[in-house]
Amino acid sequence: MSEPRPKVLILGAGFGGLWTARALRRFDADITLLDRNNFHTFLPLLYQVGAAELEPFAIARPVRTITRGQDNLHFLNADALRLDLEKKLVYTSHGVHAYDFLVVALGTVAWDFGTPGARDHAFPLKTLEDGIALRSHVLSRFETALHEPAAEKRASLLRFVVVGGGPTGVEYAGALSELVRGPLERDYPALAGEASIVLLEAGDRLLTAMSSRLSAYARRRLEKMGVEIRLGARVTAVWEDGVQLLEPAREGGSPDHRLGATTVAWTAGVQGPPVVRSWGLPVTPGGRVRVSGTLQVEDRPEVFIVGDLAQMPEGQDLPMLAQVAMQGGRHTARAIEAIHAGRSPRAFRYRDKGLLAVIGRNSAAARVAGRDFTGLPAWWLWLLIHIVYLIGFRNRFAVLLNWAWDYLFFERVARILLPFRRQAPAWPAETSDS
Amino acid sequence: MSEPRPKVLILGAGFGGLWTARALRRFDADITLLDRNNFHTFLPLLYQVGAAELEPFAIARPVRTITRGQDNLHFLNADALRLDLEKKLVYTSHGVHAYDFLVVALGTVAWDFGTPGARDHAFPLKTLEDGIALRSHVLSRFETALHEPAAEKRASLLRFVVVGGGPTGVEYAGALSELVRGPLERDYPALAGEASIVLLEAGDRLLTAMSSRLSAYARRRLEKMGVEIRLGARVTAVWEDGVQLLEPAREGGSPDHRLGATTVAWTAGVQGPPVVRSWGLPVTPGGRVRVSGTLQVEDRPEVFIVGDLAQMPEGQDLPMLAQVAMQGGRHTARAIEAIHAGRSPRAFRYRDKGLLAVIGRNSAAARVAGRDFTGLPAWWLWLLIHIVYLIGFRNRFAVLLNWAWDYLFFERVARILLPFRRQAPAWPAETSDS
Repeated sequence: MSEPRPKVLILGAGFGGLWTARALRRFDADITLLDRNNFHTFLPLLYQVGAAELEPFAIARPVRTITRGQDNLHFLNADALRLDLEKKLVYTSHGVHAYDFLVVALGTVAWDFGTPGARDHAFPLKTLEDGIALRSHVLSRFETALHEPAAEKRASLLRFVVVGGGPTGVEYAGALSELVRGPLERDYPALAGEASIVLLEAGDRLLTAMSSRLSAYARRRLEKMGVEIRLGARVTAVWEDGVQLLEPAREGGSPDHRLGATTVAWTAGVQGPPVVRSWGLPVTPGGRVRVSGTLQVEDRPEVFIVGDLAQMPEGQDLPMLAQVAMQGGRHTARAIEAIHAGRSPRAFRYRDKGLLAVIGRNSAAARVAGRDFTGLPAWWLWLLIHIVYLIGFRNRFAVLLNWAWDYLFFERVARILLPFRRQAPAWPAETSDS
Repeated sequence: MSEPRPKVLILGAGFGGLWTARALRRFDADITLLDRNNFHTFLPLLYQVGAAELEPFAIARPVRTITRGQDNLHFLNADALRLDLEKKLVYTSHGVHAYDFLVVALGTVAWDFGTPGARDHAFPLKTLEDGIALRSHVLSRFETALHEPAAEKRASLLRFVVVGGGPTGVEYAGALSELVRGPLERDYPALAGEASIVLLEAGDRLLTAMSSRLSAYARRRLEKMGVEIRLGARVTAVWEDGVQLLEPAREGGSPDHRLGATTVAWTAGVQGPPVVRSWGLPVTPGGRVRVSGTLQVEDRPEVFIVGDLAQMPEGQDLPMLAQVAMQGGRHTARAIEAIHAGRSPRAFRYRDKGLLAVIGRNSAAARVAGRDFTGLPAWWLWLLIHIVYLIGFRNRFAVLLNWAWDYLFFERVARILLPFRRQAPAWPAETSDS
């Protein structure tokens, strides 16, 4: 903090990192924003890419374009590999970078809870690549099923299992149901009525962060849309052609049984990125980094953790939401400016703007300002909020266009099977050891 | 032709195959349309995908959606592997299919003329995957160049060589220039002025299918846009970091010299798909299939060749254009109906609707109804024609939106670097032996 122009290094161009960077636009500093992708992903709509409802490009935008014009900022398209807290250095795939302030906003990655086979056969839904890979897999199931004469195998090919009854699981199951019952059944009339969607939740209700009234509403809506919901169902293994389930409350059959399915979307668990575990930061068993009420790391006042990766002190736990990351980013910018000016940073206060999960056409569950909303009002609320927050005017436009099209014609625009294979593995190199 | 309901098998869902299938919609037959992709690609706009001007999804549309509602048609997402002309069978990656009429509309693939290194280092531009791979490569050059301190290496990284001065080469060089001089220089201000685009043509003018006035216009426009044009320049080898050139007319230096460049877009040669060579059809040295004036194969009246793959009798040569394939498809449908009804098919008459090549913003070269057009009128003509012919209303809409955006804001929408790798090799398994 002795230099006149401090170096701020921000790891991750998600909501947390990007909002920190933008909120520092008038700060006299050298800011470096790092991300392994050259684009920011609007993750709240990722499930729609996974369900072929949105084109992948509609939820991605080049970081350089977003930050264009911010003269104190430099974008680095690289991987963060190692952190030296003593020397205040970050080793990246493009050189070593010194910092005076470090903001770690790397989010979380998928976690399989150590479930055997999940890493090999289940599809996470945490990145744009995940969304594209899952979408291509779902579409290819129908092509493959056309050539499968055995009814039982066809049922496995056309059974889509969604693991996890949180917002992502609920939203993905709903979107998948609309894709399968709508355009896919029209494109594959020979397979009409054969596809099934199963949503598995280990707990006793969906959307546990919301009221039980909203949970019940989501369940009713999804069942009406033809989604089979199994509560108290835990996945104990995943194979290429099915999952092993433990359902203590199951009637008429063993609680430990197998369900045939060649598509398993895994929305159940998250952990901090494995690389962060070796950085010497105070991590939880789930790989998140413990922070004080100011989002700083203990004894490292120059290190801030923003977004999903931050684990607040006990009793102040915050949900993993874009809103928390955005507000955390703005808070961190103000805190860095304060420290640089010799003042103490304030505590981070999250202003709760509510919770929303869309279930399908005209139907969503929302808690806003302490009130529950369902049905069409919640759906419009969801639409409005997402469009307003989508970064970049043009993306908003493209997303609106796609949605209007879907809405009017019950059609999906993104059903192209691109013959591309992802470069990196879907699951992190190592999963949590807890 | 003894069966009451003839089996029509159409290989390829490009313009030729798709237009044949659609023109047979009232024919009482079992029609199978086969393609290795589940989508039709609007190839005339592929260069825009390669230049990050259009999202890949904007020029692709699921075949099942296009043909939905045509009850006599069945789509097969498979590869055609082998043809048995005697038994009238096609072996595919999804079973063996018998036919009474066969329509081969497989188009052409890239051809390197046997140039050493081209298969390993040059980017063809014939398929949607090609467009995506080339686009990602171009964008990644700027990220890589940012970290390259040596000026000469940086020049190679930022030199884009386009091989071939036909419509694709001219259109791609123009679109690339607009991408590089516009959004990329704004996103990478540190590299401004360092990128160069070189268009190589072995002949003595661009766009040889058009008048020399239009050739001169295209050259002048491209040079004004900063594209370096080298006529009489033949590529004799391609390396990872450059091309070997033979330029007999070169002044001030050896005619055999090397040009550093890590991006080589290859639009120079085409050939019939290698797999077709072993099918016992009468192929030219370039792998195209010789047909009579009715598009039938000699002594095989039940076999039609439609589109780029068809080689007309001497003196009746047709250009490789979407228009020729579409009209050939409609002709073939009528010919099949005629043969089935015991009549002789008519000769194929191509109604020339003209030639068009877009060069950049407000500028194109066109020959329509025997007249040459340049500049803004030609550009509007081009826009109109492409929008009218783009299959599917929604795609038209998305394409228009993208263009309007580009036009108004000099912006590109598709600059996302997706970390995906193509599954199949870019170049055909074997190249022409001639």
